Amino acid sequence: MSITFAQGFSAAGVEAGISSVKGKKDLALVVNNGPLNAAAGVFTSNRFCAAPVQWSRKIVADGELKAVILNSGGANACTGEPGFAQSKKTAETVAELVGCNSTDVAVCSTGLIGELLPLDNVLAGAKHAYEALASTAEAGADASHAIMTTDTKPKTVELNGSTGWKIGGMVKGSGMIAPQLATMLCVITTDAVVSAGQMQAALAVATDHSFNRIDVDGCMSTNDTVLLLASGASGVEPDQDEFNKLVQEACASLARQIVGDGEGASHDIRITVTGATTEEAALACGRAVAASNLLKCAISGNDPNWGRIVSSLGTVPTEVAPYDSTAVTVDVNGVRICENGGAGRPRSEVDMTPREVHIDIDLHAGSAEATVWTDDLTNDYVHINADYES
Amino acid sequence: MSITFAQGFSAAGVEAGISSVKGKKDLALVVNNGPLNAAAGVFTSNRFCAAPVQWSRKIVADGELKAVILNSGGANACTGEPGFAQSKKTAETVAELVGCNSTDVAVCSTGLIGELLPLDNVLAGAKHAYEALASTAEAGADASHAIMTTDTKPKTVELNGSTGWKIGGMVKGSGMIAPQLATMLCVITTDAVVSAGQMQAALAVATDHSFNRIDVDGCMSTNDTVLLLASGASGVEPDQDEFNKLVQEACASLARQIVGDGEGASHDIRITVTGATTEEAALACGRAVAASNLLKCAISGNDPNWGRIVSSLGTVPTEVAPYDSTAVTVDVNGVRICENGGAGRPRSEVDMTPREVHIDIDLHAGSAEATVWTDDLTNDYVHINADYES
Repeated sequence: MSITFAQGFSAAGVEAGISSVKGKKDLALVVNNGPLNAAAGVFTSNRFCAAPVQWSRKIVADGELKAVILNSGGANACTGEPGFAQSKKTAETVAELVGCNSTDVAVCSTGLIGELLPLDNVLAGAKHAYEALASTAEAGADASHAIMTTDTKPKTVELNGSTGWKIGGMVKGSGMIAPQLATMLCVITTDAVVSAGQMQAALAVATDHSFNRIDVDGCMSTNDTVLLLASGASGVEPDQDEFNKLVQEACASLARQIVGDGEGASHDIRITVTGATTEEAALACGRAVAASNLLKCAISGNDPNWGRIVSSLGTVPTEVAPYDSTAVTVDVNGVRICENGGAGRPRSEVDMTPREVHIDIDLHAGSAEATVWTDDLTNDYVHINADYES
Repeated sequence: MSITFAQGFSAAGVEAGISSVKGKKDLALVVNNGPLNAAAGVFTSNRFCAAPVQWSRKIVADGELKAVILNSGGANACTGEPGFAQSKKTAETVAELVGCNSTDVAVCSTGLIGELLPLDNVLAGAKHAYEALASTAEAGADASHAIMTTDTKPKTVELNGSTGWKIGGMVKGSGMIAPQLATMLCVITTDAVVSAGQMQAALAVATDHSFNRIDVDGCMSTNDTVLLLASGASGVEPDQDEFNKLVQEACASLARQIVGDGEGASHDIRITVTGATTEEAALACGRAVAASNLLKCAISGNDPNWGRIVSSLGTVPTEVAPYDSTAVTVDVNGVRICENGGAGRPRSEVDMTPREVHIDIDLHAGSAEATVWTDDLTNDYVHINADYES
């Protein structure tokens, strides 16, 4: 279901011959059948942002989208004017098929940086995708498969509002995930009756608390895009607080799924920092720990190495996060292995067998907190990224 | 030779039973036989700095050191008051042996964080080391071996001033190396007649341009220490500029050796950023590229993946490093594979077989430049750090 879960959307995923993997679906189309065509978007802050990001950021600014076309198999990033022309041409082709303005068609691409797309395949694929459009669960599933690259499974979400409206979504992403924006491509759909302004506000907060708080490998993508589309097909105007909450829940679920499918990961690591003076301080500490290769290797070896946790904490400047290093406690999977900045319970008491590892850091400096997610660092991560086709 | 290369120094390296590796030398002693006992030090900025760092930073502040005792096999970090008492007791024991004040004995430790040292072994080892003190090449070599942990080889340097004075040095470090200070333990000795003030000034600049510009894994240690000792035994007052230059050369050589022995590394990567508006801008760009796990994996797979270079560059905020992304060029091993922010020569033209990989980035925004060094990321790095004894 995913993006076809909410009423008023049709979707498709087809094999267009863009990806070098034979037989792989690599082109997805999502169409908003209305009556509304409200939309909001959040994009990568990378200065080398891709052509489709440049296009989509511009055209979603008016708060309207009729369709989104997404491809795997090529990022169309660092491709200059010709790359931008490809994104524009793709939007124009979809607009002609769907019967809308090309400036109401967002374009998303993911894959290798630095090469143009096989445009003929993209345009022919767009036509096939248009012909395959449906509002079925299968159509939604096809779309979520078509955007996968190193992902090992599709990632989707479906949520019900309390008054008869719905949210669905899909995301791809498992590498090049860092906490400044941060997923590769995400489309969320709702049949609620909401304005573009409401959506943008909800989406900004939601991404800040979800995609911006996961870190697979500290690498920010050139193509990160999160789009939220509303069809209004339920006829229901949701409570604004509930709408915000469900958008956030959808983003959080998808972000969590990205970490769960992190490249080569054998553990998903939740890092919660409490007792901070501010949420920003807690976040800075959480991110410093999440970025430690040494810790991520230790976790892959089932070693609850708290020394690598506190040495990462220790790199956060005092002006960013005031705390006393001799007051800090660290629990790993519920065992307080670091007490007052020094050794606590024996490491051998920590059960490291679960896939999920919980690191709870208390700074004892205030009452603010934040949570970030990351993955461990494994041989498989190195393999995947040493061998990823250039 | 190394630290016994300059006149007026004796050294030793012995097996004291601190390391869990049987038969490994794990305790080094360096004594300044004068006539001067001038000294300078630079230490980690990590807020969880180790007990020996707390001790040594305090006692070197007066610009005088008679001896340095260094151990591998344990970092004595995050060990609270008992840890500090161990460092102090170690200094007192050495002071008694050497016949000086305990506040003229620096202490350095490296190894696992969070555990106290086997103090009896350290103190007995200090006595053995004292008895083994010599000014021979062998004694210097023994000391450089005794400070190794995951290092695969000792790292030393020997330089001659033009007027008959000398500099020697040793360093250990191959993991937990990041560009904010950044080596584990380093001792540099000179027989030049220089003041502590001259030395501190030279050392601060030298470390900033050497140890602060290498990045093996982005992880800052709790124990980083660089000490510079002058015996004055040559009787030569060096030219200040030449002194600064040779201290910097010594640090640069040792830093380069650390990168060359980076944990599990199969490539040493030199990243030079030119055409920046300021040196700080160039440095920020170089460090962003050096920190990319994705790039480091690609290099380990002999893939000159320029997309991962520019996507890392793109994370540096404009206010830090102004440049136009469509003007950037990237050469890898002399081949311009990225031109005007897009694809340049075919990647297949790049010979990736040499151990040393040169990445030259021209921002085309100014005339400042900076160079940083890093390593590639390999399976062996993961192995070493997943299995490092907790």
